[in-house]
Amino acid sequence: MHIVRYRSGDEILTGILEEGIVRQARGDMFDRLAVGPAAGNVDELELVAPVDPGKLIAIGLNYKDHVEEDTDMELPENPIIFLKPTSAIIGPGAPIVLPDGPENVDAEAELCIVIGQRCRHVKAEDADSVILGYCCGNDVSARDYQFKDGQWVRAKGFDTFAPLGPAIVTDIDASDLAVSCSVNGETSQDSRTSMLIFDIPTLVEFISGVMTLEPGDVIMTGTPAGPPRLSDGDVCDVEIEGLGTLRNPVQAAG
Amino acid sequence: MHIVRYRSGDEILTGILEEGIVRQARGDMFDRLAVGPAAGNVDELELVAPVDPGKLIAIGLNYKDHVEEDTDMELPENPIIFLKPTSAIIGPGAPIVLPDGPENVDAEAELCIVIGQRCRHVKAEDADSVILGYCCGNDVSARDYQFKDGQWVRAKGFDTFAPLGPAIVTDIDASDLAVSCSVNGETSQDSRTSMLIFDIPTLVEFISGVMTLEPGDVIMTGTPAGPPRLSDGDVCDVEIEGLGTLRNPVQAAG
Repeated sequence: MHIVRYRSGDEILTGILEEGIVRQARGDMFDRLAVGPAAGNVDELELVAPVDPGKLIAIGLNYKDHVEEDTDMELPENPIIFLKPTSAIIGPGAPIVLPDGPENVDAEAELCIVIGQRCRHVKAEDADSVILGYCCGNDVSARDYQFKDGQWVRAKGFDTFAPLGPAIVTDIDASDLAVSCSVNGETSQDSRTSMLIFDIPTLVEFISGVMTLEPGDVIMTGTPAGPPRLSDGDVCDVEIEGLGTLRNPVQAAG
Repeated sequence: MHIVRYRSGDEILTGILEEGIVRQARGDMFDRLAVGPAAGNVDELELVAPVDPGKLIAIGLNYKDHVEEDTDMELPENPIIFLKPTSAIIGPGAPIVLPDGPENVDAEAELCIVIGQRCRHVKAEDADSVILGYCCGNDVSARDYQFKDGQWVRAKGFDTFAPLGPAIVTDIDASDLAVSCSVNGETSQDSRTSMLIFDIPTLVEFISGVMTLEPGDVIMTGTPAGPPRLSDGDVCDVEIEGLGTLRNPVQAAG
């Protein structure tokens, strides 16, 4: 199932995407969704982020190729957790706004895990049972601020710096999917989720060993080598095999 | 006004604390609260955290004395923002649970700002207008994990590592309040909010320059020198002049 959310007047509605058509969904995506009448062609609807998480958890340095491209980095012993503010979330099509201040803003293509139920201390072998599905994410990062501050929240926390979408896909094996990022059609990141240092079950066990996860919480699993620089007027695509393409235009603030 | 929240059966209700008595409050703490009938003596009610924030924003290294006690640290050029997961929040009286794993868990007494309205790009001189009030907070930190990971979220993000309370105080000048932390009655941290490197208006301007703030969002403003180590069986008090005492017992997991 491909779950989307879309704007309808002042409301945000949940829909199910099938062959280019969004059907209105009844019910709760964390419990049971029933398919209702067609709402329209997906290209004619304004999609928003497919989930509204309480926590947007992210992982640093989780592709071997990304660690290796920076000779100062060592393979981490454990996943490095950070958080992005939920105020940074935007949906597909919404602009990534380059703020005044940072010089170097990069895109980072990431497989995102959407948690389906409240959980704590989940064993890796049970991880599937707490996952609702997966979507594409873009961990937009002001690289100069990231290194200056040491802590990554400001660099990765500006409004619009967390595009998510287009859909949550619930019935997919995400362990070996192609992940890419391109700017204006030129591919910069090109890897597979099988290259994750800490795989999906390991991340769910590790993070749920620290904190209670709630339905809708999102785990961004890290980015491969080659994150591209973003400039005013660019169009940035994060594409993950089976999950679709998350496209966002880029514009300067002000 | 001293705003509290308390458990009543399965519900969390909002109350106003006056001279030891909690009166049930009607309305929205971010709009207008009216005082209702007495709910009971504050000592007889189970208080929970006085606010349920969407974002729990925290600031590193923001007291001159704390930076100076570590000779490797330099005074930061700008506030260092990090986030704690909201799943870590507990109220007064609830136990801080020491997880299996980290060796060294410290308490950190912090003045907390509670945001009163949605805002972005607030000027320092207008900060008061977006602040609902202030409360005590404890930025509990697993020191060994903090240094090992580099990013602070795991170290500071375990469930129960963010006590907040006992009340939000709305009518106080927080620019020069005594802040202390004691364990089993022995004072370890003892400073004043006037020792903040980046003061309250500066923090509100800086953070709202990065991200949209929402009603209820909390900014923990950093901790002074001397954070005490916590052990199973301790009782930890964070006391801030005019804001009351946030007391939490400490217990080992399992």
